Amino acid sequence: MSCWVDVPAGSDFPIQNLPYGVISTADAPSVRRIAVAIGAHALDLAATAHLFTDAAVQAAFAQPTLNQFMSLGRAAWSSARAEITAWLTSTASALHSDAALRARALIPLAHVTMHMPAQIGDYTDFYSSIDHATNVGIMFRGRENALMPNWKHLPVGYHGRASSIVVSGTPLRRPCGQTKADDEKAVPVYEPSKTLDFELEMAFFVGAGNKLGEPIPATRAHEHIFGMVLMNDWSARDIQKWEYVPLGPFLGKNFGTTISPWVVTMDALAPFAVPNAVQDPQPLPYLRHDDAYTFDIKLEVAIKGENMAAPGVVTRSNFRHMYWTMKQQLAHHSVNGCNMQPGDLLASGTISGPEESSFGSMLELSWKGTRTIDLGGGEVRKFIKDNDEVIIRGHCEANGVRIGFGEASGKILPATPMQF
Amino acid sequence: MSCWVDVPAGSDFPIQNLPYGVISTADAPSVRRIAVAIGAHALDLAATAHLFTDAAVQAAFAQPTLNQFMSLGRAAWSSARAEITAWLTSTASALHSDAALRARALIPLAHVTMHMPAQIGDYTDFYSSIDHATNVGIMFRGRENALMPNWKHLPVGYHGRASSIVVSGTPLRRPCGQTKADDEKAVPVYEPSKTLDFELEMAFFVGAGNKLGEPIPATRAHEHIFGMVLMNDWSARDIQKWEYVPLGPFLGKNFGTTISPWVVTMDALAPFAVPNAVQDPQPLPYLRHDDAYTFDIKLEVAIKGENMAAPGVVTRSNFRHMYWTMKQQLAHHSVNGCNMQPGDLLASGTISGPEESSFGSMLELSWKGTRTIDLGGGEVRKFIKDNDEVIIRGHCEANGVRIGFGEASGKILPATPMQF
Repeated sequence: MSCWVDVPAGSDFPIQNLPYGVISTADAPSVRRIAVAIGAHALDLAATAHLFTDAAVQAAFAQPTLNQFMSLGRAAWSSARAEITAWLTSTASALHSDAALRARALIPLAHVTMHMPAQIGDYTDFYSSIDHATNVGIMFRGRENALMPNWKHLPVGYHGRASSIVVSGTPLRRPCGQTKADDEKAVPVYEPSKTLDFELEMAFFVGAGNKLGEPIPATRAHEHIFGMVLMNDWSARDIQKWEYVPLGPFLGKNFGTTISPWVVTMDALAPFAVPNAVQDPQPLPYLRHDDAYTFDIKLEVAIKGENMAAPGVVTRSNFRHMYWTMKQQLAHHSVNGCNMQPGDLLASGTISGPEESSFGSMLELSWKGTRTIDLGGGEVRKFIKDNDEVIIRGHCEANGVRIGFGEASGKILPATPMQF
Repeated sequence: MSCWVDVPAGSDFPIQNLPYGVISTADAPSVRRIAVAIGAHALDLAATAHLFTDAAVQAAFAQPTLNQFMSLGRAAWSSARAEITAWLTSTASALHSDAALRARALIPLAHVTMHMPAQIGDYTDFYSSIDHATNVGIMFRGRENALMPNWKHLPVGYHGRASSIVVSGTPLRRPCGQTKADDEKAVPVYEPSKTLDFELEMAFFVGAGNKLGEPIPATRAHEHIFGMVLMNDWSARDIQKWEYVPLGPFLGKNFGTTISPWVVTMDALAPFAVPNAVQDPQPLPYLRHDDAYTFDIKLEVAIKGENMAAPGVVTRSNFRHMYWTMKQQLAHHSVNGCNMQPGDLLASGTISGPEESSFGSMLELSWKGTRTIDLGGGEVRKFIKDNDEVIIRGHCEANGVRIGFGEASGKILPATPMQF
């Protein structure tokens, strides 16, 4: 498929991708518009909304977030994608024929500011990588009890904080909070986190939702899944460790979560579906589906310290390592009637592979701080230092087609503790 | 203070209360307006918005939810309250003088439909009643380890699901989900919850928020707390028990949470402040404040089975039993920089008192199902039956003034399991 917009070699955004995002430009910094990425450009869909045949799609692309478009459902997503593809591949298209419109609508990525793609109503984080769950289990409970009894029967998950999810590039401040040393005689202290970590994750946006009380069956989950982003679920291990019993992670996580700005659709990812993990024991019928619904997405995390010339890669993992599929996560989340809404975000949990070089957090890579992680150039880490930038990248590649996610990056600023 | 609108004896809504809610009426069912309750009437503030002196307040009361008004902060809340009080106490007020406006704006409560008072961005549930935490701890871990080591050092809390919070009167369906018997050889099954419970809670709405990375000190928390509602945190104990390790409650809770429709402001509650619980050990400085910030709010829960002529009261508790104050909860929640937004809801956790007659859940009242709860008229329960209606009520009363919350009620409809 050839596209009349130039797509540089190695671009994350060829014509087969067409991820959706929300942009603004310097001439109108407060006007947020929906766009698709194509090569080194953003195509401003607010400028081209009138070209869509469906009035509901036209109206959705006049919005400042993707929520309304997400709510329209899979048929509308597919038809919009087909129309955008036709515009960009035919030199007879209304977009190509109108030079003024083309000039207005095609904006170099270097000239756009990216924003949150959707207003996230609820955010849920799963725990669906068996290697990650096993690693953490071994560290904290020993090899014999590494996986909890429920882990292979249901996709364990918990509610996260939606307000503090930020778009790639947003700096975050090292959190302060309450921690306590392991020593039985130690008393809790208020201090900046000493063991700040990343978690390599991916997440999907819910498109059309369901009514309260009406579960989404696994076999229909695909109709409700809009697309995926990269995620860094920043974690303050010391805060988390002291607070999390018995109700789960809270302040150790909710100071910030970073996502990549471009939402890659399930249509773009479909060619990269690979067989699901073999599940033994077989899960209950409400969690079963037959089709392949995990994806071969290559992932890497790099860290750039303030004195480093270039980031050093610390891990390479793959989304295909997931034990539970997104269909199973969505079916489980709604099996009790819980209502999903357009723009809800459901994350994978840390994506670790079986080898040490594919572990998805510094907790695992440094094995609880017992060894150092080499960033190259003489820099080593156990956890994140102030002014470190953490960069997550991901892409699929096969038969000469690369479907990329761009990046989810963020820098950690020094803490600003309160004085008492 | 006398009011020219009739306030029936025993009303929850005298002139000293003036709680805010969102209403619609049969003549325009899709037009949601903000109102205050006064006696047996709702005063439609959209109809009277032009009477406020502050343009920002006028604009806020033209909205379909309270979020914008909440965002204006305490000075705007107090001035709006003073103006409404003046309208309703002076027969020379613009409202009283305009008979047509009066007729349009004062609507009998029997003629209004109540809606969610705000769009809730994030919902957090704390666990701040020491009697509840102790009871649950004894049941599941024994008396020696009843309270976790962190419990007296910080207000333990977790993120809940915002989408499934519903307004009083909304029926909920008994959830189905995955459960597993205690027996080691048992396998998980998919079934309707057999141990459905209420949790007697209260919750407060955040008004003005804070920026990401900028904590709210306990000493300034009052500026950010808008008002309170009653809450029933419905809980499926069997689903919760199997799923919740290690990341906390999820599907056992997120099928529905019921709140009362009228938000009682902190100004109305101020006369009912009582000394805070004595905290030993003293918490860290970031959690300290000197002023009384718990409240003498009498609470009761009644259950009405489908064959019962009247509801039977099953427990009487009081908000004053809280160990952690709302100021401490808010300061803790934001100590790591987590950003609060107008309309966020922060709940108390189950409010149990020290006596058995004041326990705030059926789990405690039936002591894990080992004894029956008497509803009167020969009806007994261990957990909730299909078609039971659970009704939570609350009010303050002193010196002849009653500040009431109305009710948070909901009926449980039979489950509709999926067939495979």
